[in-house]
Amino acid sequence: MIVVLKENSNPAQLENLLQWLKNMNLEVHKTEGIHQTILSLVGDTTELDIDLIRALDIVDEVKRIQEPFKCVSRKSHPKDTVIKVNGIAIGGKDFQLIAGPCSVESEEQICSIAQSVKEAGATMLRGGAFKPRTSPYSFQGMRAEGIQLLLKAKQLTGLPIVTEIMAISQLPLFEEVDVIQVGARNMQNFEMLKELGRLRKPILLKRGMSNTLQELLLSAEYILDGGNEEVILCERGIRTFESYTRNTLDLSAVPALKALSHLPVIVDPSHSTGKASLVPPMSLAAAAAGADGLLIEVHHDPQHALCDGQQALTLNEFRSLAKRVQGIVSYLQNEPTGEAHV
Amino acid sequence: MIVVLKENSNPAQLENLLQWLKNMNLEVHKTEGIHQTILSLVGDTTELDIDLIRALDIVDEVKRIQEPFKCVSRKSHPKDTVIKVNGIAIGGKDFQLIAGPCSVESEEQICSIAQSVKEAGATMLRGGAFKPRTSPYSFQGMRAEGIQLLLKAKQLTGLPIVTEIMAISQLPLFEEVDVIQVGARNMQNFEMLKELGRLRKPILLKRGMSNTLQELLLSAEYILDGGNEEVILCERGIRTFESYTRNTLDLSAVPALKALSHLPVIVDPSHSTGKASLVPPMSLAAAAAGADGLLIEVHHDPQHALCDGQQALTLNEFRSLAKRVQGIVSYLQNEPTGEAHV
Amino acid sequence: MIVVLKENSNPAQLENLLQWLKNMNLEVHKTEGIHQTILSLVGDTTELDIDLIRALDIVDEVKRIQEPFKCVSRKSHPKDTVIKVNGIAIGGKDFQLIAGPCSVESEEQICSIAQSVKEAGATMLRGGAFKPRTSPYSFQGMRAEGIQLLLKAKQLTGLPIVTEIMAISQLPLFEEVDVIQVGARNMQNFEMLKELGRLRKPILLKRGMSNTLQELLLSAEYILDGGNEEVILCERGIRTFESYTRNTLDLSAVPALKALSHLPVIVDPSHSTGKASLVPPMSLAAAAAGADGLLIEVHHDPQHALCDGQQALTLNEFRSLAKRVQGIVSYLQNEPTGEAHV
Amino acid sequence: MIVVLKENSNPAQLENLLQWLKNMNLEVHKTEGIHQTILSLVGDTTELDIDLIRALDIVDEVKRIQEPFKCVSRKSHPKDTVIKVNGIAIGGKDFQLIAGPCSVESEEQICSIAQSVKEAGATMLRGGAFKPRTSPYSFQGMRAEGIQLLLKAKQLTGLPIVTEIMAISQLPLFEEVDVIQVGARNMQNFEMLKELGRLRKPILLKRGMSNTLQELLLSAEYILDGGNEEVILCERGIRTFESYTRNTLDLSAVPALKALSHLPVIVDPSHSTGKASLVPPMSLAAAAAGADGLLIEVHHDPQHALCDGQQALTLNEFRSLAKRVQGIVSYLQNEPTGEAHV
Repeated sequence: MIVVLKENSNPAQLENLLQWLKNMNLEVHKTEGIHQTILSLVGDTTELDIDLIRALDIVDEVKRIQEPFKCVSRKSHPKDTVIKVNGIAIGGKDFQLIAGPCSVESEEQICSIAQSVKEAGATMLRGGAFKPRTSPYSFQGMRAEGIQLLLKAKQLTGLPIVTEIMAISQLPLFEEVDVIQVGARNMQNFEMLKELGRLRKPILLKRGMSNTLQELLLSAEYILDGGNEEVILCERGIRTFESYTRNTLDLSAVPALKALSHLPVIVDPSHSTGKASLVPPMSLAAAAAGADGLLIEVHHDPQHALCDGQQALTLNEFRSLAKRVQGIVSYLQNEPTGEAHV
Repeated sequence: MIVVLKENSNPAQLENLLQWLKNMNLEVHKTEGIHQTILSLVGDTTELDIDLIRALDIVDEVKRIQEPFKCVSRKSHPKDTVIKVNGIAIGGKDFQLIAGPCSVESEEQICSIAQSVKEAGATMLRGGAFKPRTSPYSFQGMRAEGIQLLLKAKQLTGLPIVTEIMAISQLPLFEEVDVIQVGARNMQNFEMLKELGRLRKPILLKRGMSNTLQELLLSAEYILDGGNEEVILCERGIRTFESYTRNTLDLSAVPALKALSHLPVIVDPSHSTGKASLVPPMSLAAAAAGADGLLIEVHHDPQHALCDGQQALTLNEFRSLAKRVQGIVSYLQNEPTGEAHV
Repeated sequence: MIVVLKENSNPAQLENLLQWLKNMNLEVHKTEGIHQTILSLVGDTTELDIDLIRALDIVDEVKRIQEPFKCVSRKSHPKDTVIKVNGIAIGGKDFQLIAGPCSVESEEQICSIAQSVKEAGATMLRGGAFKPRTSPYSFQGMRAEGIQLLLKAKQLTGLPIVTEIMAISQLPLFEEVDVIQVGARNMQNFEMLKELGRLRKPILLKRGMSNTLQELLLSAEYILDGGNEEVILCERGIRTFESYTRNTLDLSAVPALKALSHLPVIVDPSHSTGKASLVPPMSLAAAAAGADGLLIEVHHDPQHALCDGQQALTLNEFRSLAKRVQGIVSYLQNEPTGEAHV
Repeated sequence: MIVVLKENSNPAQLENLLQWLKNMNLEVHKTEGIHQTILSLVGDTTELDIDLIRALDIVDEVKRIQEPFKCVSRKSHPKDTVIKVNGIAIGGKDFQLIAGPCSVESEEQICSIAQSVKEAGATMLRGGAFKPRTSPYSFQGMRAEGIQLLLKAKQLTGLPIVTEIMAISQLPLFEEVDVIQVGARNMQNFEMLKELGRLRKPILLKRGMSNTLQELLLSAEYILDGGNEEVILCERGIRTFESYTRNTLDLSAVPALKALSHLPVIVDPSHSTGKASLVPPMSLAAAAAGADGLLIEVHHDPQHALCDGQQALTLNEFRSLAKRVQGIVSYLQNEPTGEAHV
């Protein structure tokens, strides 16, 4: 960590700071410049509260050199984490297709979609029971009943299920849910992250729509630091000025997160683009960028118009996409160089 | 609401849609263009789920003309809402200075700051007990104990207190808190908003760092729709590419929110700029833009260096600022034209 | 186009507007709502100045339904535009690798890189002679001399060259340049776009770092409207809050631009990510998303450290990447379904 | 400047770098950490090309501590620059109101507006002759003829004129123009900035819609470095995700720029908000934040509807605003503390 001091800083305060840093087991090297004095700190600064230092009267600026996270860092854990969900592996060499409707709407709907996506190549089932909606007047999901219907679909098809939690108080309902999803709006709901850290169950953590990769990793750190090591990171688009797509899918997040961390990374091309026609090319691109899986919205074909999503694929579209994605994944794993896919 | 249909849309699906809209008591006018057919809906579309329409196979685009909110709208309630907190009025002609430290750290600290900011002109006390921190390794606040210390400071000074809640389960601790603050990261924690809608206590709702004004108003709508009409909106800076300031203070939000809604609007110049030197000019600007109050971080002067905030004012700075802000407020209220200040 | 009128709008002004629209050969349908009157315009609104309408006292809002561009639109020209550069085709079924150094630095440097990238699979040569630099104190490029050296490298290798123009006055120097690049900072240098529209030479138009896809297409429209139909669009990353990468590569721009327009679309993974390690995965992803080519920075291996770019690949890295990209391209073109790759 | 080296960096390359830095007259202090080695450079690093260092194989990261600009820095020139335009002072204690129409449309229009805004309190006249328009089909301005009409309005009223240049080749037309405006889209048109640096005439430099304050100051540095010291900075809103306003006015830019630089700073509340109703509160706020002037769009009242701007004030609105802004400015200059207004 680099601490830049203000000109003419109070020597007593500086002495205090140096003493305090020494007590934190940090070595301090001082460089006197023309207008500034720079302190270079050597040692483990992960647990140093950067805001405390920054807040000092004598400090002009603080720059972190070392990464601020530990458990999620690839440095501390060079091998890919592989998370097993009912025998299915997320991370490592495997690639998973998690598909299903935006919302659970009825037993018939979720069960029929579950069977169809399974036949088409999906390895897990997604579906929203609790729905975060911008307006209080929009459909809020089937809630507890929705979870029950997902469990029926799981029983029928054997597909593990992924569904979103919106409050800690809902936790008891998630006992048989295979993967608990934390939505983008709750990525920094730190009290909830702490509770999820106490579980021993995979957490799918979506990047907040205006959160940096570092913030995403620090939110994952909350969970791992609590003892739950099964976190799946998910890029789902960030908020930018571009309005053609609902969000801007930041695919460079995939190799970046995999370089910084050992956790698996999946991509949600449906919410990020908000347009069904962009889902297939972005799915192929995500696979090519090295993602460990995809989270895709699929609706059941027929005429029940009012519940289909603008961003959802039809079953035929999903079936065709599934084949092509698997094709890219195996091409990249079996190419002449023999290298893994990034 | 305008619904643009796709070319050659299925007539049976269109008939379904038209029937469904009629059942919602909406009148529909159809305009046939060259490539598109446009439906103009007349009637109350507030409670129409725009995503449901957008999701239809036959729909190309939906554009809302009417505002999507109702309770918070100035159209439904032309007069300014004035919220009384222990005899202090937020909204209308009054202007409130809410000041205090970033975090509560000790009884001595919070009580001495409370007394000093009161003397300097503050009308309410702020202070964090539960602290949302990006890293699990940063100080998380004094939590329940912090609330107790705030209540002591209130008893001592008579200043009403404002402090942040981070989870519904903390609600019992907030019984004697005068104004419950919902932080930027929880602006779309909809389950919590619903609970706060059941209270009869003022809620200070901060704009999320990447949320639009419309989203902020819809989050307020969750609370009002639940029956709690006392919501104070707070602009605290949005996330942009600019890195000189911690966030970008969007002051045009003040007149914009006041035009769209009857709710009071205050400004937090401390978190938005992240730099103490920018707090005074931005406070004056917020007052000139028509804000109903300010939320300002102030620390106690002396050498307890490690707890002071980079963005916090000293007591002297706050005292001088308080006078100038009040000067601007009264200049604008008493100017020759006799107009109110926007 | 939809025009929403203000409540109680002046009837004489409305009559003026209706008359004026009729003179523009537009049909107008009027829908009277509770608070608003909506005009739906039918006809060709491409050349309607939306700001003129929006500016009217009686107008509350204007929403465009039809796309505002014409020459670049896929509607007006359903087949892919294929641009021939010295016998090399950009667009359609072909895929081009444009590689070379960030800046031309010496004859030896550019000629040796040109030969090496050609052997490694590049089909065109890139290199900067005029360099847009944020600071006046940074290296501004070899300018006219740099162009001469690029031409020598072309003579030596046969590779067509792509290089950036920064001012109209430099145009005479570009006579033998094969493709003129317009950098992100000049995407809305409209006077220059008009001049380039008078040429009969391919223009590589980079998306501005905070420009929407619609703005990019309108800038291309300036060139096509001038008579020059050979425009290659280039996604090179947009500016967002994320600071891990230099910019955020918006890969969904590739299928989106190809849906909206018939022009070829290439991707620059070097400038967008700013990190050499992210270039290979993003190159593969761009190919999978359906791009028509890549613009990649490559430096010559050895020890002349001070000129190599943080985001540039070594020759070995480029050689290996070139093979894998071509592999993905042929996989997608030859897959069982026989579909083109989006 | 801080240079962070990669782990296990090549000693010969490091030696090269250290030697090269020494030749630049920089002192280098080396701190060996666990995973990193940090070089702290002491001396004048303004003219150091940060990208060259960053590009080195052995370098992981470079962080600038010192500001990268020199001529525009307040450190090098602590007193406010005051620019005289025909006897009118921009900067220092004065406050200027620059008003006029968006575009020059006819002699009658510009002359009548010029007289009216002068009577209402304007001290300079603005008006567009060359208009940067996103679409080639939108009105491009009266161009050379527009400049002639502005000069007539100047002759009539004595108001100095401000108008935008879009290409270097237009420069001869600007000989009698008092202040040359560089629009947001040309803020990084470096070749044009260099030419303007050769003039001895005030340049009004608008911040690009996605440019940082540092980039704005470096663009100003191009002009000052060329010898032209008369640059007026202008905040005109930045591009963000918020769509209620056309841009987001970043008022904290005012005190920030004034802290970093000695140049005067004005604000354009018309383009930034895009809504006439927001112009008065944002104008008052800009004055309160310490701006040196405002650039405001005003149209002539009556029925010539098709040319008025949605964001333009009527003359009555401008007259009333001018009084209130002057009131705020004098309140802040004459307040008891006797301090200047920031």
